[in-house]
Amino acid sequence: MTLPPLSRYLPVLQWGRTYNRTQLTGDLSAAVIVTVMLIPQSLAYALLAGMPPETGIYASIAPIVLYAIFGTSRALAVGPVAVVSLMTAAAIGNTVEAGTAGYVAAALTLALLSGVMLLALGLFRLGFLANFLSHPVIAGFITASGILIAASQLRHILGIQGEGHTLIEIGAGLIAHITEINWITLVLGAAAIAFLFWVRRGLKPLLLKTGMGPRIADILAKAGPVLAIVATTLAVWGLELNTRGVAIVGEIPQSLPPLTMPSLSPALVSQLLVPALLISIIGFVESISVAQTLAAKKRQRIDPDQELIGLGAANIGAAFTGGFPVTGGFSRSVVNYDAGAETPAAGAYTAVALAIAALYLTPLIEYLPKATLAATIIVAVLSLVDFSVVKRAWAFSHADFAAVIATIVLTLLAGVEYGVTAGVITSILVHLYKTSRPHMAVVGRVPGTEHFRNVLRHSVETQPHVLSLRIDESLYFPNARFLEDQLSSYAAEKPELTDVVLMFPAVNEIDLSALESLEAINTKLNHAGVRLHLSEVKGPVMDRLKRSHFLEELSGEVFLSQHEAVCKLDKQQN
Amino acid sequence: MTLPPLSRYLPVLQWGRTYNRTQLTGDLSAAVIVTVMLIPQSLAYALLAGMPPETGIYASIAPIVLYAIFGTSRALAVGPVAVVSLMTAAAIGNTVEAGTAGYVAAALTLALLSGVMLLALGLFRLGFLANFLSHPVIAGFITASGILIAASQLRHILGIQGEGHTLIEIGAGLIAHITEINWITLVLGAAAIAFLFWVRRGLKPLLLKTGMGPRIADILAKAGPVLAIVATTLAVWGLELNTRGVAIVGEIPQSLPPLTMPSLSPALVSQLLVPALLISIIGFVESISVAQTLAAKKRQRIDPDQELIGLGAANIGAAFTGGFPVTGGFSRSVVNYDAGAETPAAGAYTAVALAIAALYLTPLIEYLPKATLAATIIVAVLSLVDFSVVKRAWAFSHADFAAVIATIVLTLLAGVEYGVTAGVITSILVHLYKTSRPHMAVVGRVPGTEHFRNVLRHSVETQPHVLSLRIDESLYFPNARFLEDQLSSYAAEKPELTDVVLMFPAVNEIDLSALESLEAINTKLNHAGVRLHLSEVKGPVMDRLKRSHFLEELSGEVFLSQHEAVCKLDKQQN
Repeated sequence: MTLPPLSRYLPVLQWGRTYNRTQLTGDLSAAVIVTVMLIPQSLAYALLAGMPPETGIYASIAPIVLYAIFGTSRALAVGPVAVVSLMTAAAIGNTVEAGTAGYVAAALTLALLSGVMLLALGLFRLGFLANFLSHPVIAGFITASGILIAASQLRHILGIQGEGHTLIEIGAGLIAHITEINWITLVLGAAAIAFLFWVRRGLKPLLLKTGMGPRIADILAKAGPVLAIVATTLAVWGLELNTRGVAIVGEIPQSLPPLTMPSLSPALVSQLLVPALLISIIGFVESISVAQTLAAKKRQRIDPDQELIGLGAANIGAAFTGGFPVTGGFSRSVVNYDAGAETPAAGAYTAVALAIAALYLTPLIEYLPKATLAATIIVAVLSLVDFSVVKRAWAFSHADFAAVIATIVLTLLAGVEYGVTAGVITSILVHLYKTSRPHMAVVGRVPGTEHFRNVLRHSVETQPHVLSLRIDESLYFPNARFLEDQLSSYAAEKPELTDVVLMFPAVNEIDLSALESLEAINTKLNHAGVRLHLSEVKGPVMDRLKRSHFLEELSGEVFLSQHEAVCKLDKQQN
Repeated sequence: MTLPPLSRYLPVLQWGRTYNRTQLTGDLSAAVIVTVMLIPQSLAYALLAGMPPETGIYASIAPIVLYAIFGTSRALAVGPVAVVSLMTAAAIGNTVEAGTAGYVAAALTLALLSGVMLLALGLFRLGFLANFLSHPVIAGFITASGILIAASQLRHILGIQGEGHTLIEIGAGLIAHITEINWITLVLGAAAIAFLFWVRRGLKPLLLKTGMGPRIADILAKAGPVLAIVATTLAVWGLELNTRGVAIVGEIPQSLPPLTMPSLSPALVSQLLVPALLISIIGFVESISVAQTLAAKKRQRIDPDQELIGLGAANIGAAFTGGFPVTGGFSRSVVNYDAGAETPAAGAYTAVALAIAALYLTPLIEYLPKATLAATIIVAVLSLVDFSVVKRAWAFSHADFAAVIATIVLTLLAGVEYGVTAGVITSILVHLYKTSRPHMAVVGRVPGTEHFRNVLRHSVETQPHVLSLRIDESLYFPNARFLEDQLSSYAAEKPELTDVVLMFPAVNEIDLSALESLEAINTKLNHAGVRLHLSEVKGPVMDRLKRSHFLEELSGEVFLSQHEAVCKLDKQQN
């Protein structure tokens, strides 16, 4: 990189310099469309996070601007998203009671912690940590979260109480209050769900039939939730359904995002540290996946470490402007991209439009029923639920299957935080277990070549006095003793043995424990009158061995190739 | 294994059947020598564990017999050992106050928990778990424990108070009480230390000069502590030094090991679970190392899983006979072996001799000063302190160095439990970090061979339109995205590229995340007009790939060898 440091950390200085009229047009039209879509989505995710509705809009304003300055994706739209909102509710719900002032304050602290962590990860270039969330774990987590979110919104559709952070708690809550169903709410909610599903499946084909262009049809179909909101709000207002038990959003302050100061009380901070870290990592993974997908379409480049800085800034912004944790969302970013956003400036224009909405439009949604927002959420998250990863993992490898099942089961039954953690830990443990019992193959020469393969899988030539053993794993502490045991038993089976060649093309790394095992093997074989050789030792491993006395003590030689080893040992024998 | 199950789990049925007079003589003489050595050692380790002195002898009786029945080593002597006694003191000291009846009861529970865990690990054949303690972590832990133990005994030498489980606590305790030094105790203790060091270094050469055989000289030198005990006990008794502030062992009940019932109170059990697990694993690792070293000398075989069962039985025995956690000790086993023990029956005879001592000889040690026992411990453990592993690890690999430093520093400053845990976690994290950024090498053909090596290290032949990339790591979730990024940048650098060959001889494993990355790479390269090939894919990886659709979607071919790949691609080009 020869960029000056400032523009590396402020990508806005790169694209801002060449900003032109075409880009302005694209960005402005995208901003209008995204704003229409974002208002219901922001309100809904605030509800999901257990926050007052207006905070959902606040959480979309400052973060979107800050990401525009610091982020590298040209189409990513930052704000509240389903999974992160659910994790926010779980994290704060364990600490503070929902609906209190302390709850809103805790959300600010959570956003600040998450922002600082993301920033730190970015500045220290630790973005690779996100790779420890394997694809199956992410897929399992998203699916399970989708189910959990949909289940958590059922109470709004039924008009009853019954909160909870696991499927069991939610189910028990619903059953306990099932007699209190508000039938008007249920009718409204069910109608909204049915309408929204129809919008997803049926509206676009219909619009296409009318001769509308596919892109516009697509965007209009995505604005369906606005129609549902307008219709149900009018119904409640006109029929005064709120006096008959239909829960509504209620009066919302008309205000720009307030300036807020997150609490840094040590007790609160220490309780929120782990949840903040999980929210940061999950949010980052979700955001970077969306950003990379969109960037690939236009052959643009995403810098993961700079993305962390952008998301960190966005979350810190949310913390100081009355919001809650945010990240790059899938649906909003896709709409932004499809609507023609050319630069992050589209985000800035969206922010201005949202600020106007927060200032002037909130009285219009006083009578919006919560059931409609819940319907929006349910329809959105059910599209995330996809169990195909379970089938795919089962077919491909039991290790991946174990990780995905651990993730799904624990997310559903113990909560989102445990689910991700269980998935990562399972992946790592299964990997360690596998490498602790490495595959080893006795090999022989494929006739007429210099190539050596497993005697059990290929028809190859071997010699009675030479044992060629290919080690199919890096040698390190979990498997050091295993190698010793295996070699002892191989050697015991073949009394005519004079030479053992360990083929190292697959040994990528060797640690001190393994070196000590190799030394022990060398000594043992030497006592039994058998020489130990190595072949095809790779550069980094050879460098490592040269730092010890092993090569001086080795009873045999180190051969460049297995072919060379076998030729020479054959000659010595005859 | 064609052994009947009973003799597999009861090795005594194997060696017991052929027991003869020669073995009896060897076993009996070994038993006498070991008993003389064990009495002071058992008393000293009881002191270290914070237990009444007689419990050290009790802990040597039943465990030694039970190990003789269930264990596979013919020379291992089981009983209290330094590191496990220190860990016992740390575990119980955190829960119960030292010197109380509750403390002794907690030790029984700890021994029971540890015994049950060892037994379970053995029955489920989980002995391989001990491999996760790498050699450097064990070496660092033993060294740091040695320092910690020696430091913890200084107060007995100085005749002052000042307990603690970390170097800082111990230091602070000593400084706080430094004005209360009992000078007579100090003189006795210092003299004992000096004498014991001289016995270790000087006595054996002296005995050899008198014409004594080296084996007998060695054994006599190891009995040195008995001399120190006799001399200091007589001095205290004759000069009535106990009336002048010299702490003595005091009156000890004359009794066979009592039948005790360990408490299973849920509160106590839950507090001791983690310490018990650590004690089990550390004890097992120490014991198996000794057993394997001794077995190798006589070409006998140790079965790790059966060893777990033997040690489990020994600890359960200790729990029901007034003892505390035990394991196979290094010094006592070596003495047993050197003194001519032929079978585990030697252990049974030792147990009988110790039982006689517990019944009749305890009045003789009423005036034994604690300072002498402390001196015995200090001299014994300082021989464990060996910092050479630090130097060796530094020279060999920074990963091992990090693990050994983490172990030593945390053992000294935070306590034994944290030290081992930190070492294991550091080893695993460093491994994961390394595999997350795998080594990759662009390779070319070594002229005149079919062998391919790194272009940067060897002078090799390459072709401009073919990129041959050897992946030096298994492909799994931590490095899946890294591979994608690397390939994109390699491909971007070479516009003339038509074919990429990924050489897989070092890819030992592939998981679903990596498969998805490979699919993405295949698609991306395909769009850029570049074909993707694989070569030298190993059997297990090929089996895995066949379970997915990847091979059907692959734009290129899978070659048996890299040589074949390059020949064919060269022909196609020309």
